[in-house]
Amino acid sequence: MEHLEGRQSVLAALAARQRRFEVLLVSHSAHTEKIQDVLDAAAAANVAVKRVDRRELDALAHGATHGGIVAIVSARTRLKAADLPSIFPQLSPPPLLLLLEGIDDARNLGFTLRSAEAMGACAVLVKKHLWDFDPVEVARPSSGAYERLPLVQLDDIKPLEDLKRQGLRLFGCVAGAKRTIFDADFTGGTIIAIGGEKRGLSSAVRQLCDRRLSIPTARPETSLSLSHAAAIVLAEAARQRRGKT
Amino acid sequence: MEHLEGRQSVLAALAARQRRFEVLLVSHSAHTEKIQDVLDAAAAANVAVKRVDRRELDALAHGATHGGIVAIVSARTRLKAADLPSIFPQLSPPPLLLLLEGIDDARNLGFTLRSAEAMGACAVLVKKHLWDFDPVEVARPSSGAYERLPLVQLDDIKPLEDLKRQGLRLFGCVAGAKRTIFDADFTGGTIIAIGGEKRGLSSAVRQLCDRRLSIPTARPETSLSLSHAAAIVLAEAARQRRGKT
Repeated sequence: MEHLEGRQSVLAALAARQRRFEVLLVSHSAHTEKIQDVLDAAAAANVAVKRVDRRELDALAHGATHGGIVAIVSARTRLKAADLPSIFPQLSPPPLLLLLEGIDDARNLGFTLRSAEAMGACAVLVKKHLWDFDPVEVARPSSGAYERLPLVQLDDIKPLEDLKRQGLRLFGCVAGAKRTIFDADFTGGTIIAIGGEKRGLSSAVRQLCDRRLSIPTARPETSLSLSHAAAIVLAEAARQRRGKT
Repeated sequence: MEHLEGRQSVLAALAARQRRFEVLLVSHSAHTEKIQDVLDAAAAANVAVKRVDRRELDALAHGATHGGIVAIVSARTRLKAADLPSIFPQLSPPPLLLLLEGIDDARNLGFTLRSAEAMGACAVLVKKHLWDFDPVEVARPSSGAYERLPLVQLDDIKPLEDLKRQGLRLFGCVAGAKRTIFDADFTGGTIIAIGGEKRGLSSAVRQLCDRRLSIPTARPETSLSLSHAAAIVLAEAARQRRGKT
């Protein structure tokens, strides 16, 4: 059992229909007119609503940003590589995927999912051993993206080889690579691989890359966080794809 | 008196020479070879080093990520609009500035400073009434950018009018604007204005904008956080400026 905090996450989960809702808890102090859309969506989905004391929500929630709304829900189904064909049944429009290695913070993963969805990625791939994150901490900063965007668990790099055989190109972001993200062509089927700040991409993924690319930065001492690097590369892909898909 | 946590922030502050160091506290358990560069920089700057128990650092620090290094330092000088001419004495290369309105989280400000510096911004402007943030919480995620990048406090919009008179163009990011960031020309002197997620830009700043621009997103329900929106727009400016400056 998990919970969702705040109207954004609850509305997104009700719309995405990927979770079973046990109950929607609403604070006595929440103004009905401000949460009417949530109540309407819950009624349409046949979800029970219980009015509770705000302190009950505070005790359940991880933060103070729930705004009087918490839902008790089933965990989100974990997607596996075998589910990828159903995520993009065709290669047209050319799929855009993000592969994350070494993400070490649930909140950063949430922000990354949010940006990835906004920039048109159709799925985010995460290595299995990195899957040990707190789903509530991912869902909050994702602003609903965690409910909608497929997050796929990879057991090994075989699925990447399969995707490459299907015609997708794997681009790895590597500091110091001569070619930059602005010199690459992201208009075809694309996987963008980004590693953690400490160790970067694994050598297994590096060796699989069709191209290694750098994000040009102003001075050597400057740097980007993983989630901001991902947003910048995906936005460049989105820019190149404008009007083409 | 403030403190700095972790080698990145301490090294950046020692190099930037914008703060007075009272003492550098180093955990007994920190391996000397791993922090030799910090010790060398402290010695070169004549900063006293004190070996302490790690629990003493844990009690001082806001998080567990200090890595055995905490410095007690003076607060960073607050820059005012009157300092802008010393930040970019000439208009060549054309300056790139970021104006933030409605940033409500110190950590997000820190990440924004980090991305802004990496993408070549020469200063970040923040309205005075938003200045009430915890500097330690800003410094940590900025990975040193808070020590190096000028952060300028604006009392009102007059300095923006002055910058416009000098030839800088003010671009406001506004959801739904017809023209996108990819249709704008950021190669001249540029101020990019981004508002908070809740209220967006103030009407005073909106009215001052030479152009209002949107960041195209994949679907209407998707969105970007302020810091990720800033990173994307600044990266587009950096892309356009490549080879031109």
